[in-house]
This record gives sequence, structure tokens and C-alpha cells, in this order.
Amino acid sequence: MSEGEFDLIARIRQRVALRGDVALGIGDDCALLVPPPGMQLAVTMDTLNAGVHFPADTAPADIGWKALAVNLSDLAAMGAQPAWCTLSLTLPQADAAFVDGFCEGFFALARQHGIALVGGDTTRGPLSVGIAAHGFVEPGRALRRDGARVGDDVWVSGTLGDAAAALAQWKADAAMTPGLRARLDRPTPRVELGRALAGLAGACIDVSDGLLADLAHLCRASGVGAELDAAALPASESLRATFDADVRRALQATGGDDYELCFTAPTTQREALEALSRALGLPLSRIGRIVEGRGVSCDGIGHAASGYQHFA
Amino acid sequence: MSEGEFDLIARIRQRVALRGDVALGIGDDCALLVPPPGMQLAVTMDTLNAGVHFPADTAPADIGWKALAVNLSDLAAMGAQPAWCTLSLTLPQADAAFVDGFCEGFFALARQHGIALVGGDTTRGPLSVGIAAHGFVEPGRALRRDGARVGDDVWVSGTLGDAAAALAQWKADAAMTPGLRARLDRPTPRVELGRALAGLAGACIDVSDGLLADLAHLCRASGVGAELDAAALPASESLRATFDADVRRALQATGGDDYELCFTAPTTQREALEALSRALGLPLSRIGRIVEGRGVSCDGIGHAASGYQHFA
Repeated sequence: MSEGEFDLIARIRQRVALRGDVALGIGDDCALLVPPPGMQLAVTMDTLNAGVHFPADTAPADIGWKALAVNLSDLAAMGAQPAWCTLSLTLPQADAAFVDGFCEGFFALARQHGIALVGGDTTRGPLSVGIAAHGFVEPGRALRRDGARVGDDVWVSGTLGDAAAALAQWKADAAMTPGLRARLDRPTPRVELGRALAGLAGACIDVSDGLLADLAHLCRASGVGAELDAAALPASESLRATFDADVRRALQATGGDDYELCFTAPTTQREALEALSRALGLPLSRIGRIVEGRGVSCDGIGHAASGYQHFA
Repeated sequence: MSEGEFDLIARIRQRVALRGDVALGIGDDCALLVPPPGMQLAVTMDTLNAGVHFPADTAPADIGWKALAVNLSDLAAMGAQPAWCTLSLTLPQADAAFVDGFCEGFFALARQHGIALVGGDTTRGPLSVGIAAHGFVEPGRALRRDGARVGDDVWVSGTLGDAAAALAQWKADAAMTPGLRARLDRPTPRVELGRALAGLAGACIDVSDGLLADLAHLCRASGVGAELDAAALPASESLRATFDADVRRALQATGGDDYELCFTAPTTQREALEALSRALGLPLSRIGRIVEGRGVSCDGIGHAASGYQHFA
């Protein structure tokens, strides 16, 4: 392949959907955007590198999906409504087939959430995808990490450990179970849930580094501790069928890449959250409680923060 | 070095300056920002990769400076006032000395322009720096590429070709002339000029890929052509002292990485622009004119777009 940068940009640009609040999109030195009056702007930026954040042989469409998904998950964890994003795509060589595949996954997810690609760049280098995502949230309603209070319930959405299980299979050169691999390659950002939690939940974080580690971040920011019940951690059928209870528990508690939301809420919100679970068709599990002190324990055993660290 | 990701983030975070419009900075899933009422948001994102955009042995402080400078230059080319940025820093290993050096250059430039770092991530991988930058511009005053009109003068700020000359020396394994290398490593984003041009200039672009190529982008967006006078292209003393006239002209016309602003303005603005040049202490050179037709010619010789393409 020997297409130039501008051809690659043209391939991407032709897929872009319009939004009324994009005054000027791809093609100038900057995008020009019109923030809605009275809203705060939530901004996040995450980069995925080949061989570190995804297996090097991951399908381009899955890479496009996942790179956007992890950023949408950050918006979800803040309770923000997705609006705009920029993309820095670094490729070893100009590869139109890769870009087309990438766009397929990227824009499939972008369409689901009405987020518009408004700018960015393409460069040459080892495969890497950086995305900055922007969303809107009402002042005072954002789901910050520092809003947990002693006595709150701890909740988590969906199921835990599936992505880490697929990653463990990959690292062991074993065949990845399809149901697990799908969760690793195409995580579902819980955007609707995050929007609905703004006003119900006290604090929220997305599970990217592992439940214990991420909940520990939340507890530290809030100045509290948490006690979890291992038996309450939700597991998928795929995970139950593939791993015994001990390994499964470890994957659920410490495995990253699930992109579920872990949040706290007063006990008075239990009925509202159960109703929300039914309305969204998404399991919400009560997995523990916020306590005085520091750190996170599970079935009474304390844990140091032990999630994924990029340089550990 | 074996510091973890969170230690690196802490090293960066302690350098961050506050702004009143940052409701929540580094440390949560998203930053929360408060856009000023009635302004448009200008957003850009550029990534620099080691060995592609800068020599691998570039000082960390220069990498930090340049990565921010190229993004500030995009805001300048739009006439926007810098406000916030996010940083994705990819490092082969956790290296506190690198991060400290990087921060020195990055924050030295950030302070000059009052831009606040509000989020991002650090990941493991081949050295790469991605930045998304945000600025404000009054609706209708942004310096778009499509505002050039037949009869306008073409102007350029500062001097051209210095960065490309240093790069040519580097590629030839020759010693880089200090005055030229400084322009490659520590480009000056023309932020004040960009702000002042909003309202004076018709169209504007920053010279990142080379004058002829970047002016061709501007002409294409505006549906016009341009004629340049080679003798009018501004050259630094360092460039004059180091290269003969032919090589110098080629570097000035086609070399990238200068990050000067190339803009168009009606002839009625000549006096205002000369006064602006004196007020800013920055040379502004009238280098040609906008004409009917397509493409850019220099001394009557037509040129295909021939600037830097990342995948050429």
C-alpha cells in the first residue's frame, strides 16, 4: 500500500456523521464546536497501543471499536452525554484496508452514541490509536470519584472478569472462548447507564484496571473504605463454563478491561436502581458497602490496589 | 526505572497550574470544564512519534515543548485563545528522569500561553506524545482556510526553512547549526499573532508541511490560486549563513516544521499589518497574491503540492 496521508484522511472523513453543534469539522487547523449553554464539558483521552492494550492480530474493526469504547466508557463513568471526538491514528504504513476496517468498527459504535469525529491526525509509526472524547453533563450532576459516603451500597453493572479471562487465554497461547473474546475486543460502554445514574449514584468509576483497583481509586478519592462480598460479584455464563470458582473469582476481582461501571448509592436508592436495571435490560448487582477507614476488602480479606498498571 | 503509572502521573500532576474554568482536573474519569458563554471551542489533536517527528535523541524537554507547540500552533492558525489540553504520553518504560525533563519543556511553554493540562493518560509502548488542545474563538472570527479572496495579499510570519535545514543536517548525519536546531526543537507557536489576525486576515494556516503545500491546502479550500515571489520569502541569518541561495529557496518553499502562520488579507490591511508587526516585534512579510485559478506558483513556476506527507 502506498496511499498518502490525505487519502487516508479522505477515507475516514467520508464516514463522518454531522451534528448541528459542529460548526467546522475535519479539514482545517482546528474543529470549531458550539458547546450547549449551561453545560459542563467532560473531556477524556486514552491511547491504545498494539501488543500492550490489544493483541497485535486483533481485527482492525475491533481496534476501532475498542479505542472509541474505552473513551466512551470514561464519559459514561462521569455521567456525560457523548458529543465529539478527535482521533490520532498511527500506522506503520498507509494501509487503506486497515483504515476501512478500523472505520467500520469505530463508526458502528460512534453511530450508536451519536458522537461525531471532528478532527485529529494520521501519522507513521508503530500501530497506536489515541482518542480524545468530549461530552456534556449538567453542572453538579457529574459522577465524580469523591462522592462515596459511609453506609452507601457498592454496585456494579453487567458481569466481571470476561475480558481478563480472554486476555489470560491469549497470553497462554490458548484459544480464546468466543463469548469472552467478544467482551475483550468489543466492550460495551455503559453510556445510558451513566446518564441515568447522574442524580442517583454518589460516586462512579469504570472498571478498566480491575474491580479492586478501581474501587480503591474511588475510595481514596472519597476518603472511605469498602467491603465486598465475593459471592455477589456477577459472572457470565461463558466465564462460569470456562474457569473454576477460584480462578473465576480472581478474574472478577482483579481483571481489567471489563468497562462496567462500579458505583455507590445510598440504600434508599435500591428500588430505583432495580427499576433502572429492568428498564435498561442490564443487570445491576449490589456487591458490598462503603465503610469507614481505608482500602477495599473482599470477604474480610484486605487487598492492596492490585489492578493493571501500565509500567508494573 | 520501575516507577508505576500512578507515580508518573503524580510527577506530572504536581506541575499543573490552575484555571478558574477547570471544575475538575487530572484524577477522575474525565476532566470537567466550563466553556465561556458565547464562544466557539476550537479543538485540535496532533501526535509526535520518535524517529518520525523528532530525532530519537532529542532532549526530553524539547520533546515536551514541541509536542505542545505544534498543537498551540493549530490554535494560533485558527485565531483561538488557548485554554485546556490533554496529554497521552507513551513511554518504553517508566522513566522518571524523562518525565521530569518532558515536563520542564511542556510546562514552560504551557505557562507562556496560560493553557492548563486537565487530563490524559500514560501508557507503555514506543515513545510517542499525543496532545489534544482546546481554545476559544468568537463566532465568525475564526481564521478558516476557506476565506482567501482573489486580489488578497499572501503574508507569512517570521522566517522560513530553518527547521527543515536542521532536519536536513540531521538526516545527513551532519552537525546541526544551533540556531537552526533551536527552531526545529523549540518552534514558537504564533498564538498572539493568530489572536490579532482574527478580524484582519481572510484565511490562515500554519506552516507544518511546507509553505507551498500548506498554501495549496488553503487555496484549495478557498477555490483560488496563489502567486509567490521567491525573493520575498523571509530567511533567517542562520539559514543565509549555512546554505547557498538555491538550497535555501527550496528549504523555505517546501520545508516543514516552521510553524509560522501563512495568511491572506485584503490590500487595504497592509498598514494595519505592518503596525501589528511592529507591535508584536515579529516580521510579517508580504510574499505574494491570491489569483484566480488553482494551485500555487513561485516566480511563475507552478508547483504540485509537495510538502511533507507522512506516508509518502
